[in-house]
Amino acid sequence: MADKTGIWLIGARGAVATNVAVGLSALQQKAIGPTGLVTELPMLRSLPLAAWDQLVLGGHELRSGNLIDAAQAYAHENRLPSLELVKQCQSQLEAIDARIRPGVLFRGGDAIVREGPEIESPRAGIEQIKRDLLAFQSEHNLSRVVVVLLASTEPETPHTSLPDHWRELRLTLETNAACVLRSSSLYAIATLELGFSFVNFTPSLGASCAAIEELAIERNACHAGRDGKTGETLLKTVLAPMFAARNLEVMSWVGHNILGNADGQVLDHPDHKQAKVESKDRTLGKMLGYDPQSLVSIEYIKSLGDWKTAWDHVHFRGFLGAEMTLQLTWQGCDSALAAPLVLDLARLADHAAARGETGTLEYLASFFKSPLGQVEQDFYTQLLLLGDYAERITANS
Amino acid sequence: MADKTGIWLIGARGAVATNVAVGLSALQQKAIGPTGLVTELPMLRSLPLAAWDQLVLGGHELRSGNLIDAAQAYAHENRLPSLELVKQCQSQLEAIDARIRPGVLFRGGDAIVREGPEIESPRAGIEQIKRDLLAFQSEHNLSRVVVVLLASTEPETPHTSLPDHWRELRLTLETNAACVLRSSSLYAIATLELGFSFVNFTPSLGASCAAIEELAIERNACHAGRDGKTGETLLKTVLAPMFAARNLEVMSWVGHNILGNADGQVLDHPDHKQAKVESKDRTLGKMLGYDPQSLVSIEYIKSLGDWKTAWDHVHFRGFLGAEMTLQLTWQGCDSALAAPLVLDLARLADHAAARGETGTLEYLASFFKSPLGQVEQDFYTQLLLLGDYAERITANS
Amino acid sequence: MADKTGIWLIGARGAVATNVAVGLSALQQKAIGPTGLVTELPMLRSLPLAAWDQLVLGGHELRSGNLIDAAQAYAHENRLPSLELVKQCQSQLEAIDARIRPGVLFRGGDAIVREGPEIESPRAGIEQIKRDLLAFQSEHNLSRVVVVLLASTEPETPHTSLPDHWRELRLTLETNAACVLRSSSLYAIATLELGFSFVNFTPSLGASCAAIEELAIERNACHAGRDGKTGETLLKTVLAPMFAARNLEVMSWVGHNILGNADGQVLDHPDHKQAKVESKDRTLGKMLGYDPQSLVSIEYIKSLGDWKTAWDHVHFRGFLGAEMTLQLTWQGCDSALAAPLVLDLARLADHAAARGETGTLEYLASFFKSPLGQVEQDFYTQLLLLGDYAERITANS
Amino acid sequence: MADKTGIWLIGARGAVATNVAVGLSALQQKAIGPTGLVTELPMLRSLPLAAWDQLVLGGHELRSGNLIDAAQAYAHENRLPSLELVKQCQSQLEAIDARIRPGVLFRGGDAIVREGPEIESPRAGIEQIKRDLLAFQSEHNLSRVVVVLLASTEPETPHTSLPDHWRELRLTLETNAACVLRSSSLYAIATLELGFSFVNFTPSLGASCAAIEELAIERNACHAGRDGKTGETLLKTVLAPMFAARNLEVMSWVGHNILGNADGQVLDHPDHKQAKVESKDRTLGKMLGYDPQSLVSIEYIKSLGDWKTAWDHVHFRGFLGAEMTLQLTWQGCDSALAAPLVLDLARLADHAAARGETGTLEYLASFFKSPLGQVEQDFYTQLLLLGDYAERITANS
Repeated sequence: MADKTGIWLIGARGAVATNVAVGLSALQQKAIGPTGLVTELPMLRSLPLAAWDQLVLGGHELRSGNLIDAAQAYAHENRLPSLELVKQCQSQLEAIDARIRPGVLFRGGDAIVREGPEIESPRAGIEQIKRDLLAFQSEHNLSRVVVVLLASTEPETPHTSLPDHWRELRLTLETNAACVLRSSSLYAIATLELGFSFVNFTPSLGASCAAIEELAIERNACHAGRDGKTGETLLKTVLAPMFAARNLEVMSWVGHNILGNADGQVLDHPDHKQAKVESKDRTLGKMLGYDPQSLVSIEYIKSLGDWKTAWDHVHFRGFLGAEMTLQLTWQGCDSALAAPLVLDLARLADHAAARGETGTLEYLASFFKSPLGQVEQDFYTQLLLLGDYAERITANS
Repeated sequence: MADKTGIWLIGARGAVATNVAVGLSALQQKAIGPTGLVTELPMLRSLPLAAWDQLVLGGHELRSGNLIDAAQAYAHENRLPSLELVKQCQSQLEAIDARIRPGVLFRGGDAIVREGPEIESPRAGIEQIKRDLLAFQSEHNLSRVVVVLLASTEPETPHTSLPDHWRELRLTLETNAACVLRSSSLYAIATLELGFSFVNFTPSLGASCAAIEELAIERNACHAGRDGKTGETLLKTVLAPMFAARNLEVMSWVGHNILGNADGQVLDHPDHKQAKVESKDRTLGKMLGYDPQSLVSIEYIKSLGDWKTAWDHVHFRGFLGAEMTLQLTWQGCDSALAAPLVLDLARLADHAAARGETGTLEYLASFFKSPLGQVEQDFYTQLLLLGDYAERITANS
Repeated sequence: MADKTGIWLIGARGAVATNVAVGLSALQQKAIGPTGLVTELPMLRSLPLAAWDQLVLGGHELRSGNLIDAAQAYAHENRLPSLELVKQCQSQLEAIDARIRPGVLFRGGDAIVREGPEIESPRAGIEQIKRDLLAFQSEHNLSRVVVVLLASTEPETPHTSLPDHWRELRLTLETNAACVLRSSSLYAIATLELGFSFVNFTPSLGASCAAIEELAIERNACHAGRDGKTGETLLKTVLAPMFAARNLEVMSWVGHNILGNADGQVLDHPDHKQAKVESKDRTLGKMLGYDPQSLVSIEYIKSLGDWKTAWDHVHFRGFLGAEMTLQLTWQGCDSALAAPLVLDLARLADHAAARGETGTLEYLASFFKSPLGQVEQDFYTQLLLLGDYAERITANS
Repeated sequence: MADKTGIWLIGARGAVATNVAVGLSALQQKAIGPTGLVTELPMLRSLPLAAWDQLVLGGHELRSGNLIDAAQAYAHENRLPSLELVKQCQSQLEAIDARIRPGVLFRGGDAIVREGPEIESPRAGIEQIKRDLLAFQSEHNLSRVVVVLLASTEPETPHTSLPDHWRELRLTLETNAACVLRSSSLYAIATLELGFSFVNFTPSLGASCAAIEELAIERNACHAGRDGKTGETLLKTVLAPMFAARNLEVMSWVGHNILGNADGQVLDHPDHKQAKVESKDRTLGKMLGYDPQSLVSIEYIKSLGDWKTAWDHVHFRGFLGAEMTLQLTWQGCDSALAAPLVLDLARLADHAAARGETGTLEYLASFFKSPLGQVEQDFYTQLLLLGDYAERITANS
């Protein structure tokens, strides 16, 4: 099948995107195996997902630079991917890099700086994004495009300040002063106005509000999000239901995360950190049915690079008042955990678009810390949603 | 309702049984809450389970002694239950202690010593057990009796040495020389011959063979087992499916358990330890679909008492070859984790018996390390079985 | 020998003081052994220190209440000391409680509230303290008095705002407006003006400035401090020199402390926390000779009570660029670690006073996180100071 | 100074030796810094130690192969040293590899296999070693030679079976049947008979018996050992004295080590493991003054390669009976920790030989798990020995 799908990454030279680019190139060359890819599991393998060589990468990026340099610097700092593999992917990385366009920045927060001019209005920014996406589509003759947001976490946007309907929100896009949205939502709006699919892998707002959901349905577009569930929160949504299932009372749950990547540096700014911590912390009460004291910290420790270490201390009470503890230490390479999920989500959103699904793709909840339209936080319950979906599709095909 | 059910504990003055006795007495007095009890969760609360004051405790024990002394010594060593609570339960503990009869020992392994005479033959031992059980039933006017095996782990009995059918196995019970079974199975046979329910909370053989399963069905009796899933294995069956669901390759899984209770002392004998380690280790390959290198050790460290500490080190590989680790430290009071599950299992087996269920109760898999008749190891999949059962019963009632 | 020494605790019903009171009472009754007491080690046993029954406890306290209630509540929450021991010490605890006087509060910070009237001036507060100390001395016929500061950590007092000389500082004590000191220093001044000994077990200023040091020497009084080294910092000053001695480069050292005692609650106020974190963090660069990135957090987690858990993550580099980690988890009962050191310091300061030593007792550095007059942070080097002192005294006696 | 010193490694293509070879080559090219090298610390820098380019490497090896392949395979498996550095050292590694001679194997234990013929008698083996050492010396015009034993751990040799005097031991070397020694001691004897220096970095016997000590003194040769202290034991000898200094009672100390290098594979054989575990475990009682329950395990986990992970659980008691815990997790690259110490020891033994020191070099105790002739186990006390030595030498020069 000659059908091609574009994956457009926002933050296209960041750590996750760099690993997506190297990883996809390596998969296309069969230089690596399927480890880490959920869509390569038996559960999903019967779905007619795009093959690796049907996928074309491009993206927006605020910073200048070069994808090969980024990959080498990343490999040097984090001891993976191997420099040999980066070399082996060189020509593909060059081609991807040539497709990267200057990104749009609007109210991004103090920690994020763009090289280049500001946009004139939110609407002007949206139109610029749409031009880039359409050029990408026509140049590579793409049947569909999935936009994946990987940009640095923005400060939170209070939901109370947002209009409930698209027809109202649309009007606020005409002037900078009227608009409370930030870049992430401009990308979402541009994507959905074109009927393309949008995946929000970050805690930023993106498409996560009623008004933009209306837009998605109006344009027959689908979207999913938000905040990829890669490490400590994944563990939390796996373990908390165990305490609930055994009627053990969680008295406190403390999680300290230390990491040294750019994400960590941005999160060191208090307003950006708040958005992240909120996203991680919301989950516990929902799974347990009550709110234990809980604490989540994320701290920037330069020497760790992209190797995030999380320590979790769970203090719980059992029968006869026994006070017990579970402690976890997780040492994971953040981008190597995130990158395959980005590819999985792009394939699954593309598959949904090909089937004409619209609005929030709730069955993708297991991929996200704050799943949209889906209050269930328990990982295995979320996984059943995905399995049921795959079974239903397969049974009907 | 005046209906009463007996719970007969094998190992009735051991650490778990002592906590069961204090715990049930405290529940009957409403001195403690439902923490740790699975049968008090919403999922199971609609089942017509026996109320706490419908339950009467008794049991067999090899060692002499006294339940109040045992409870005080335990509380002193392990800082729970509180001495106040033990005092508050004193008259009930005295009553329970008066119902404890000398146990039967047959080929129990080098680490277990019985005070008193040996049995003449396995059949003689079985008849003695049956007399004790029937006396317990008639004295307390019990509708049903559930026997729960809590005795020290026996050396393994090779399955290849066991006859496939009850009519053959029965013949071997007449002389000591002909019989390869050990005490745990004599208890199981006695229980099932009376049509009572049998729960095997230990790794010993008990009723876990085809011939005894035949007996259970013949007598319309039910049973469940084996090896209560309280700590490290619970975590393993919660976490391993997560690695599978994310296509992360577990390269090695090392688990070291240290504890200082009598169980640990018995397990320090190499032949007893083997049975235990086998039971813990079987689970991993089933959940992952391949066998990573794995190691489980259990060591007796006196100072820890009943507070088991487990350290697990999981080494796994992700996308692009990233080698990552998850480490766990679990500090739990073994008996405070086990005791409520014993009460849960007794209530559920009693409920099954009241409904006329026979043979292996597969839907109780989530309570066991080596669930009978049920190859599924994944805790949440096991939990779905229990939830489905409860829903079915409730819907039909 | 009829010679008696008074120990006067500031914060006399707090967690540490309560454990000091129970512990000293138990030692006087020979109900407990010497575990945890440095002065009972062979190294110091040859010194003519006060015997346990020569010591009389009293103190100041801001809060109302009762020492027996405090001990029972503490024991209940923290599972030690045993309620039996508290009962056994009841009459002694009553006697100590009767000696507790209302404390003085001056610029204590937002988190600390006193029941009772404010003082008229710093000097008035000092005179009130002196009256209480002299009454204590005369009532119990005490040869010497050691005052030990155990009160909640105050906000930091900038050293730049303090006069260099006692004659200047003294003048600022006349009016509230002129004085930048806080309660801790008023206690120090009162103590030293009487020629008594002062031990600062907290991070507060106390006697730690040049002007008050002048006062101590002028009155032939001695003092020691500050901030008792009980847990995570003790480990740090034991382990950091190891990295230095092996030429391993510490790249980052992260320490997260969680605890749920009153100390933790006060430290949750940002201004109080700052003082504490500063005191912990100063040590690393001094031991390594360079400043790795370092982070120390202290968070209040109610369920933990006085059981502080500290997680330390040390990221270090070795030969050929190998990046390695050491992680520590420390679970200690804060007051059970602190209380014997308070008794040790009181005995040693009393011994120093008896010998006529004046000014800072530098050889007590191993007891403190921020040792006065002594820049050495390495625990074993500090210990050599103490050993040398003991040897010198013993050789001369 | 044109003076040259040879370093002759037994086990010259093993993991440690490979890292020594790459490391020394890199130091000679100034491609790496002094991190991990004790002899580059201020404390020792005043000693007239051999400069890096005065050192010439050679050695014995049982297995065939090639040092460059070994270095590349090691780097690939363990993610260090970088492949770039290995490449940069290629010509030097080739030169070193050309100096490696087939080793001698005598009663090495079941886990070690030699390619090539057996020796005719211990004496014949010794003479072969001596020929190789003398050829190395003359070919490279070496002033002195230090032999460092890095070969796999041998099964233990009971001290009771060894003659007390060299004149007796010497006689047993004539026939295989009479000799209870193993290869490690043949290397030691050959080295010392030539008056060269011998360093035993392994737990094997080597020169650690009275008879061989006699030989050393007779030939004016010096030696040091045994069993390099790199990881978990280093921590133990740093931390145990802290518990002693605070009068905290260690009730149990459990250490589990997992690793996947060749050393681990050999140690998986029970008789080899015994020797290693003995060496690690002896230390605790000496530092504490009493013997807590202690457990040390070493397990081979293939996926870890040379990255040893150690988990230590220390259960200790404090004042008022408080039971507390310290847990450690150490993740270190074994060879990157060992290799610089090998270079340090070679330089220091060479310096001792140049000064005419003979017999056991006790001041090197801090480098070893089982320091010869020196019962002190406390790391910092051991370090004082080394510091005092350096000061004495410097003062006299």
